[in-house]
Amino acid sequence: MNDIINQYRIEKQPYYRNVADEIELYEAAYSVRMPMMLKGPTGCGKTRFVEYMAWKLNKPLITVACNEDMTASDLVGRFLLDANGTRWQDGPLAIAARNGAICYLDEVVEARQDTTVVIHPLTDNRRVLPLEKKGELIQAHPDFQLVISYNPGYQSLMKDLKQSTKQRFGALDFNYPAHDIETEIVAHETGVTAEVAGKLISIAERARNLKGHGLDEGISTRMLIYAGSLIAKNVNPKAACHMTLVRPITDDPDMRDALDAAVSTYF
Amino acid sequence: MNDIINQYRIEKQPYYRNVADEIELYEAAYSVRMPMMLKGPTGCGKTRFVEYMAWKLNKPLITVACNEDMTASDLVGRFLLDANGTRWQDGPLAIAARNGAICYLDEVVEARQDTTVVIHPLTDNRRVLPLEKKGELIQAHPDFQLVISYNPGYQSLMKDLKQSTKQRFGALDFNYPAHDIETEIVAHETGVTAEVAGKLISIAERARNLKGHGLDEGISTRMLIYAGSLIAKNVNPKAACHMTLVRPITDDPDMRDALDAAVSTYF
Amino acid sequence: MNDIINQYRIEKQPYYRNVADEIELYEAAYSVRMPMMLKGPTGCGKTRFVEYMAWKLNKPLITVACNEDMTASDLVGRFLLDANGTRWQDGPLAIAARNGAICYLDEVVEARQDTTVVIHPLTDNRRVLPLEKKGELIQAHPDFQLVISYNPGYQSLMKDLKQSTKQRFGALDFNYPAHDIETEIVAHETGVTAEVAGKLISIAERARNLKGHGLDEGISTRMLIYAGSLIAKNVNPKAACHMTLVRPITDDPDMRDALDAAVSTYF
Amino acid sequence: MNDIINQYRIEKQPYYRNVADEIELYEAAYSVRMPMMLKGPTGCGKTRFVEYMAWKLNKPLITVACNEDMTASDLVGRFLLDANGTRWQDGPLAIAARNGAICYLDEVVEARQDTTVVIHPLTDNRRVLPLEKKGELIQAHPDFQLVISYNPGYQSLMKDLKQSTKQRFGALDFNYPAHDIETEIVAHETGVTAEVAGKLISIAERARNLKGHGLDEGISTRMLIYAGSLIAKNVNPKAACHMTLVRPITDDPDMRDALDAAVSTYF
Amino acid sequence: MNDIINQYRIEKQPYYRNVADEIELYEAAYSVRMPMMLKGPTGCGKTRFVEYMAWKLNKPLITVACNEDMTASDLVGRFLLDANGTRWQDGPLAIAARNGAICYLDEVVEARQDTTVVIHPLTDNRRVLPLEKKGELIQAHPDFQLVISYNPGYQSLMKDLKQSTKQRFGALDFNYPAHDIETEIVAHETGVTAEVAGKLISIAERARNLKGHGLDEGISTRMLIYAGSLIAKNVNPKAACHMTLVRPITDDPDMRDALDAAVSTYF
Amino acid sequence: MNDIINQYRIEKQPYYRNVADEIELYEAAYSVRMPMMLKGPTGCGKTRFVEYMAWKLNKPLITVACNEDMTASDLVGRFLLDANGTRWQDGPLAIAARNGAICYLDEVVEARQDTTVVIHPLTDNRRVLPLEKKGELIQAHPDFQLVISYNPGYQSLMKDLKQSTKQRFGALDFNYPAHDIETEIVAHETGVTAEVAGKLISIAERARNLKGHGLDEGISTRMLIYAGSLIAKNVNPKAACHMTLVRPITDDPDMRDALDAAVSTYF
Repeated sequence: MNDIINQYRIEKQPYYRNVADEIELYEAAYSVRMPMMLKGPTGCGKTRFVEYMAWKLNKPLITVACNEDMTASDLVGRFLLDANGTRWQDGPLAIAARNGAICYLDEVVEARQDTTVVIHPLTDNRRVLPLEKKGELIQAHPDFQLVISYNPGYQSLMKDLKQSTKQRFGALDFNYPAHDIETEIVAHETGVTAEVAGKLISIAERARNLKGHGLDEGISTRMLIYAGSLIAKNVNPKAACHMTLVRPITDDPDMRDALDAAVSTYF
Repeated sequence: MNDIINQYRIEKQPYYRNVADEIELYEAAYSVRMPMMLKGPTGCGKTRFVEYMAWKLNKPLITVACNEDMTASDLVGRFLLDANGTRWQDGPLAIAARNGAICYLDEVVEARQDTTVVIHPLTDNRRVLPLEKKGELIQAHPDFQLVISYNPGYQSLMKDLKQSTKQRFGALDFNYPAHDIETEIVAHETGVTAEVAGKLISIAERARNLKGHGLDEGISTRMLIYAGSLIAKNVNPKAACHMTLVRPITDDPDMRDALDAAVSTYF
Repeated sequence: MNDIINQYRIEKQPYYRNVADEIELYEAAYSVRMPMMLKGPTGCGKTRFVEYMAWKLNKPLITVACNEDMTASDLVGRFLLDANGTRWQDGPLAIAARNGAICYLDEVVEARQDTTVVIHPLTDNRRVLPLEKKGELIQAHPDFQLVISYNPGYQSLMKDLKQSTKQRFGALDFNYPAHDIETEIVAHETGVTAEVAGKLISIAERARNLKGHGLDEGISTRMLIYAGSLIAKNVNPKAACHMTLVRPITDDPDMRDALDAAVSTYF
Repeated sequence: MNDIINQYRIEKQPYYRNVADEIELYEAAYSVRMPMMLKGPTGCGKTRFVEYMAWKLNKPLITVACNEDMTASDLVGRFLLDANGTRWQDGPLAIAARNGAICYLDEVVEARQDTTVVIHPLTDNRRVLPLEKKGELIQAHPDFQLVISYNPGYQSLMKDLKQSTKQRFGALDFNYPAHDIETEIVAHETGVTAEVAGKLISIAERARNLKGHGLDEGISTRMLIYAGSLIAKNVNPKAACHMTLVRPITDDPDMRDALDAAVSTYF
Repeated sequence: MNDIINQYRIEKQPYYRNVADEIELYEAAYSVRMPMMLKGPTGCGKTRFVEYMAWKLNKPLITVACNEDMTASDLVGRFLLDANGTRWQDGPLAIAARNGAICYLDEVVEARQDTTVVIHPLTDNRRVLPLEKKGELIQAHPDFQLVISYNPGYQSLMKDLKQSTKQRFGALDFNYPAHDIETEIVAHETGVTAEVAGKLISIAERARNLKGHGLDEGISTRMLIYAGSLIAKNVNPKAACHMTLVRPITDDPDMRDALDAAVSTYF
Repeated sequence: MNDIINQYRIEKQPYYRNVADEIELYEAAYSVRMPMMLKGPTGCGKTRFVEYMAWKLNKPLITVACNEDMTASDLVGRFLLDANGTRWQDGPLAIAARNGAICYLDEVVEARQDTTVVIHPLTDNRRVLPLEKKGELIQAHPDFQLVISYNPGYQSLMKDLKQSTKQRFGALDFNYPAHDIETEIVAHETGVTAEVAGKLISIAERARNLKGHGLDEGISTRMLIYAGSLIAKNVNPKAACHMTLVRPITDDPDMRDALDAAVSTYF
């Protein structure tokens, strides 16, 4: 069992640049094992934050990218057929609950309802995970914590968390970092100079203003790191920006022109 | 079998503060083994109430969080493949019926219809559970009782219990407790002073007035306990309220302003 | 096999109060083994009637609560995996057909179409049940009879029996019994006095007038028996009525007021 | 194998009263093994006709009641798990094709498309049934013939046979028999006098005029036989008619009055 | 393996009457192993053409009647459970690709998308079939060719081949043959005189003019052969035409009258 | 394992004619193992480009044609039943991640959401593939890269990549090559003269102008190669063009006339 859980330990300190008091608040929430919900747009650093906190708290981290075809069994576990008949295989949530890991359900709203309801008994004071198919009740390890991410910009009328789920979580808001902090992040992660990184952030800021005016999402920090990493490989900065900041997010000619113009302003 | 049922016994008296005559009425209903339906908003104490009653009546309690992907087999049981061929595995409802537990189906309206119909023969005077796949008819243990919860605020035209199901249950209404009682509950559960607890309840009362005017649900008792537990850990009360009372339930800027203002009034 | 069928025998005479000539008509229908359809609202005594007739005719009774997730295999049977390979497990309909039981499909209209079509060959003069997956043709036992229930108030455009199914059944109409008969039934089943029982029936009659004017269904005989059984346990009659007659069937404040007023008129 | 096919032989001559030249036309169609489609309303004698023809031609008859949950595997066969691994189990269509039976697919339009397409290769000059899952191509036995039934009154826009299926069949129309012939049939099948039988047919004729004017289908010959069989058991003719002709097919009060009036005219 | 593929060889020359240059064009397409799409109405000879070409090119022919419930596994193959665990069973497409057969997917547009996408790698210059579940990449046999049929009259907005599929095929148009050629075909296939055959074709031509004006499809060559084969068995020509040309394709009284009148004109 | 991966090596240099700087940009992206998205219409050379790059970089290439019925298990792998119980079978994505192949997901937008979400952890800095059902975390081989294709013309409101997926890829645009380059390609691939190839390109250019004006897609380079290969086999050029350029993409008579006229202009 230790082998299974050890592959989820984070050996090296992940680079994370704090933005406000999110680290202290998370530590307080963890101290009472409060389930946490990280809210914010895609690519702004939610996943990196939870990796950093897992490292800082020295707990294994099990991440599950949720999707609409995921079933409760994918989280909780299932019976497999073995030479000696059926054998129970714990799912990632059961592994985390038994071994005291942090379980991070990324984009939980995408999951089917049974996957969201299955976490309820883990989020109230009982802190249990019923394996109904197995007839077992897992009492969560004292170190176990549940974290989910949630992108408020995506939610439609059709797909949202139930109130009875939302109320079981404390929430932290995330957004793209301030100009100087984001510059520091991009420079650190790609090796480009602060000047180049700053130009990339300026391009992103123009795109972010177009969100809701033709763009579904702005340019994320992750995309800026992609652009920077190509520039650091001596790719022409304009080509790098087109390939990583413009073409992936829009096929609309007007939007492309607007974003290309932003690129040309700085490079 | 005793091992299986014993994990569902409630060893310690759960904290429950009665609001009206619900304890006596439930005891009368249990004395004739009437199936019960607990109605009320999320997080107002329905689950805690049934835990308390199970402890008071000294019966094991099997709780099932229902969801739209749950099948009748998830409740009743299924055949598993074993070294010697198939082996029957009782589901939680069958375990409860055989062993005289209280079976609590939380948010039963979320379940598919086959899960709700499967409880019918347990709710009339026959008190049987047919395991059709196994060809067995379980005669319920004399101690067995069925309890379901139901949140009237959630029901849409698409999803409601059938009349032929509703009529099989006696019903108790639940709501958020009165100010003084709720203060007592929050102080008891978190360790904050009655003054702090009272402030939290006042914030909640403002939010509950917004229900239906921009909020789907008000702030529940459970959420107040979250806020209190962070404050008891010396987190700044405002930050604690934002994290546990405001951010989880709304992303609407106006609603957030309204709720933040309520927080600032008291802290 | 005898063990399996014997658990479906009804040992004690069920209490049934005849309303008109339904017992004689059913006996005539059974004498030609005509498939029967019992029509009427939920909780008016259809299930009790068929239990009574099974007892009177001294035949085992196999009851199946139908639902929209039930498959033909749930009725007919399926192959199970055994130490020696697959083994056929008769479903409830096959058990009934082989052993000469009455098979009662409760709320058959809820079932998927394959479950209703599977009964066709049992309802014409061939009286056979093809187990297509097994390659066997069951010739029904001479005592076998098929009975279904059907609630005309429920049927929507989307969900109704096919004409080719309906035409295979003789039909008996059921409704709530007349005042005096229902009083007799409630008093007998709960132990309350005829006076108390009569008051309960009067409350129900008011509610039944509201059917279609805000209530989906009226208060059924079954619900009155619930109320009476609490009153017989010395629960306050008003509280007993609220808990069993009012709260289960409506959350609409106006309807609740109307029903509460009816309760207050009599208790 | 002979045992399996022999259970489908029709030992006794079924009673069938010919209406026009349908017997000769069917014999000619069978002589060239033309696939046949029997069209007409429910309960008018299509199934009895095909039973009679199978008896007359001395061929086994395999009848399958089609439904919307039936899959191609239900017709063609499937692999079952055995002590020695998987074993192929022929479905009813494969049994018929191998052994030279007439295969009658009742209400084929109800079936899913894969069940209707699977019959295509059996209906053109190749006369083969590919068992794709098994990698086998069954060359149909020279005696094999395919027959389907089809109720034109039922077909909606959503559910109809594909033209490429329809064109593969010769078709015979069926309808309720003429007054005198139907009288003869009902008297023969139930033992009532020709006078009583004639009255029943007169009632049916009134109802058939209401088809499309409040009734989905008229009263079928099968229903008249039900009524007659109760009358022959000395049930009051009015009660017998209500139970078998009126209540099964309508819950509309006006329609019931109209039909009851028709009954009262003759009994 | 040879046994499996040999059952798909066409031993006898199928009767096919060429209409234009379709045989030469197909031979050229086969010489570069171009995937082919045969377009045209149902029953006009597409299947017979591909049988003839397979015989002429001396290649085995594997025909699959596609339907909306067919999965990629039905074409490609699947794992079956055996005494020694799972065993891979090639589907018809894999058998054809391995053994150099022509694989004919009849009415491919009916199939689910995964079945149409699975053919893509076989239709570009790689000519491979990935068996992803098995981890094998079949390099198609040099003789393998893929042929699909497609009825343009059927395609709705909901169901059409994707452009990326269509572009992978050369296409040949088919239609009902010219009067004299069709006469020759019907006389040859049924044994009726050219005069009788000519009358049948004249009836068909009238019906084909009604296509889109009350008839979904005209009378096909296949249906004329049905009519002729009954006439050759001395069935009255009018009865034969009603049974094979009129009743199968329409239940509309006006259409039936129009078609019956056409029949009466010639017989 | 080497056997499995070796069947995905590209032995011979694929013919690819570069259009702009796409080869250099791709090499830079590969050097930082950036996931890539190739955008452009069907049949313009995206698949050939990725084959060429795989050959140039000397990496195995695993191509998966995505479709709406593909599940995450089809990509990641599944348990199979073996003589010794279940055995894990890697899917194509897991094979690629373990062995350092380039994994090309063709038309990824067609896939269900779980298949697109499953690639997320492979596209951020963790570069892991969690096999949740197996409880294993594959750390991607240093040579592994993920490539997807995407046709912007196809995307509907219902079916598009999620922003959180798009942002994980650098993107390259593809389109039909310029006249002279496309002439060179068609001549090289088919063996026709540059003159004939040029005429084919001119026909295609006319059709491409009709895109959105009656044609869903223009004539692709792939289709021109089909036409050329028939002409090289001495098929009449007009017939070859009708068969490969016109009939496959439209059944609309006006469109066919317009395209036939374009063919007649040049041949």
